[in-house]
Amino acid sequence: MTKMMYFDNAATTPMSLEALQTYEKTAQDFIGNPSALHREGLKAQALLQENRETIAALLGVNASNLVFTSGATESNSIVLNNLIWTQKPGQVILTNIEHPSITEFARLLRQIGWNVTFLNAPKGFVRPEDLKAALTDLTRLVCCMLVNNVVGSIQNIAELVAVVREFQAHKGRKIHFHTDAVQALGKIPFSLTGLGVDSASFSAHKFNGPRGIGILYNTNSGLQSLSRGGEQENGLRPGTENLPAIAAMTKALQIAYGSMEEHLRKAREINAMLRTELSEFSFLSAQQGCSPYILNLSVNPLPSEVFARILYDKGFCISSGSACSNNARQKGESVLSSMLIRPDDARSSIRLSFGFDTEIQDARELAEAIKKTYREHV
Amino acid sequence: MTKMMYFDNAATTPMSLEALQTYEKTAQDFIGNPSALHREGLKAQALLQENRETIAALLGVNASNLVFTSGATESNSIVLNNLIWTQKPGQVILTNIEHPSITEFARLLRQIGWNVTFLNAPKGFVRPEDLKAALTDLTRLVCCMLVNNVVGSIQNIAELVAVVREFQAHKGRKIHFHTDAVQALGKIPFSLTGLGVDSASFSAHKFNGPRGIGILYNTNSGLQSLSRGGEQENGLRPGTENLPAIAAMTKALQIAYGSMEEHLRKAREINAMLRTELSEFSFLSAQQGCSPYILNLSVNPLPSEVFARILYDKGFCISSGSACSNNARQKGESVLSSMLIRPDDARSSIRLSFGFDTEIQDARELAEAIKKTYREHV
Repeated sequence: MTKMMYFDNAATTPMSLEALQTYEKTAQDFIGNPSALHREGLKAQALLQENRETIAALLGVNASNLVFTSGATESNSIVLNNLIWTQKPGQVILTNIEHPSITEFARLLRQIGWNVTFLNAPKGFVRPEDLKAALTDLTRLVCCMLVNNVVGSIQNIAELVAVVREFQAHKGRKIHFHTDAVQALGKIPFSLTGLGVDSASFSAHKFNGPRGIGILYNTNSGLQSLSRGGEQENGLRPGTENLPAIAAMTKALQIAYGSMEEHLRKAREINAMLRTELSEFSFLSAQQGCSPYILNLSVNPLPSEVFARILYDKGFCISSGSACSNNARQKGESVLSSMLIRPDDARSSIRLSFGFDTEIQDARELAEAIKKTYREHV
Repeated sequence: MTKMMYFDNAATTPMSLEALQTYEKTAQDFIGNPSALHREGLKAQALLQENRETIAALLGVNASNLVFTSGATESNSIVLNNLIWTQKPGQVILTNIEHPSITEFARLLRQIGWNVTFLNAPKGFVRPEDLKAALTDLTRLVCCMLVNNVVGSIQNIAELVAVVREFQAHKGRKIHFHTDAVQALGKIPFSLTGLGVDSASFSAHKFNGPRGIGILYNTNSGLQSLSRGGEQENGLRPGTENLPAIAAMTKALQIAYGSMEEHLRKAREINAMLRTELSEFSFLSAQQGCSPYILNLSVNPLPSEVFARILYDKGFCISSGSACSNNARQKGESVLSSMLIRPDDARSSIRLSFGFDTEIQDARELAEAIKKTYREHV
């Protein structure tokens, strides 16, 4: 009942029963520390590697390029913090539509002497020509997310990477390209090797896996973690491996990949129905090039928080911003403003986000509630 | 059967059934992101706070001083990385018996201009007079663990803190005292406020809680995390909170505190029995002042790894080092050498560590196996 009216899946998704059962079974049957050399340790180490290989096969990458972390925030942090550890200050190019776990590094990086350039994303999309214009001899890192969490726009990462590769070929110096792909994994098809990125971040709780576990895909052997400790995860992520959560994440990812087409068809149907039913509103998610799992619209002139609260009271869970933190509204607005969305629409933006369990009849109820609420208050 | 012969509880403990059930129930009943403002988010936020207060009450501290992290490695990392973020290089005092998640920062800190001083721990114990002699006008941070993970020695933290406080009172500048207390929490009684530390690190998987979750206790409002993102956990630990694991950790800690005396009595009995049964060996854990949960002994002249492997083949899980990583043996040896333990004993050191489930009859079997293995190979 509660779950049925849950439309905040871009913030987090419920852990599936299958993932939960896998967590439970792994916690009970694999009690050793994977770094220990006794029977229980070796058993745990074998399962750890088996899971890494299963995920690598799903993603079409080498298992040795996958590092298990506590989630995308940490994965992003490893990449950004690496700049502190290994290199002399240079330039970093970020986009204004990144998650705060990326953009919030700007202050630290500037403090220690880095030049941080932010790219806008007009109508939701970062433009290759803007990236081309921003590259300099000092550029060391470019970060651009794959699917934006506020409006769902799918960035043309392959083309952005091509711009960087062409530039670095001229300069003869490697530039690292990182993508935060939390809103993409398990939801839309993509190929990491096809995109050509050097690294990518993922969180299991975005695709019905457990909280507190994620992945850093990384092909840059020069990357060094600021975290210190044991040599776990190629030294990039020390700490006892969270095997039950890793196994549960693997299970959730297998389900997501196994049913991706079916899930996508359902999400597209829900998205299209909402676009029809709510056609009186302005959609901040572009008609083309967005993930069907996210639909952002403006309830102008009503402020998004007021509108969202009324819907909460009616039992609907939606988001008035990126919902990644308590001060998300402001950040969501600044993301929208970098997309050249009008300030009054940005202030009235609500985000509906769907999961594998979202049913079209529930989305219909949501549409009715949105229309009714709007009529009652405008 | 497997679990019965498990004597590597200082590396990790099995998750208790109660903790597992709490994890499961929380994952099913609390699906929202605690940062979201809708009903599911508020429900999750309330449970998060309830857990924080429960743990605070057990520890006798303010809930606002508890930050949930992915474990002690991360908690330690937040404290050490803070030096990079906020301060001009100065001096850090560490001990040679710290876990690698502390000592491994030395290289980074030295690279960015810090002076790192290491204290030895003769016979297992860091001496207040050595700390006093090491303090300088530039000292910013002192780290000393509460219970050593290799031999179990309980450090006199209160006295070490007193040395620092006396020194800083003269100098008029605050020095941060951090303790890694993973081997203590839930196992031996201690008071964080009584010890007087500014911060402390804990991991749930050391007391039958889940992997991938831990605590940073911190009273220093100047501490800043290098991790960036949302404002979760007072900004010290951004990322969606791992609520099922937090609730399961709370449950495990309640059980540990509720049965601490009973557990301790059992551990002391096991420890004393092993000291009697294995009296032909040299004990590297001091007779006095050690946690009863850890017993380290030398099987000199047999190399510890060879000896441990034979025991593994017989179905016993013990450790030949601190078992926190694959290169733990070397680190374990260097910890032992800083305790002034003879090199041949250090190379022959095996660690037996007990948990709440360890039964004395199983420990008797272990004693027999150790004696028999030794006789067969010497």
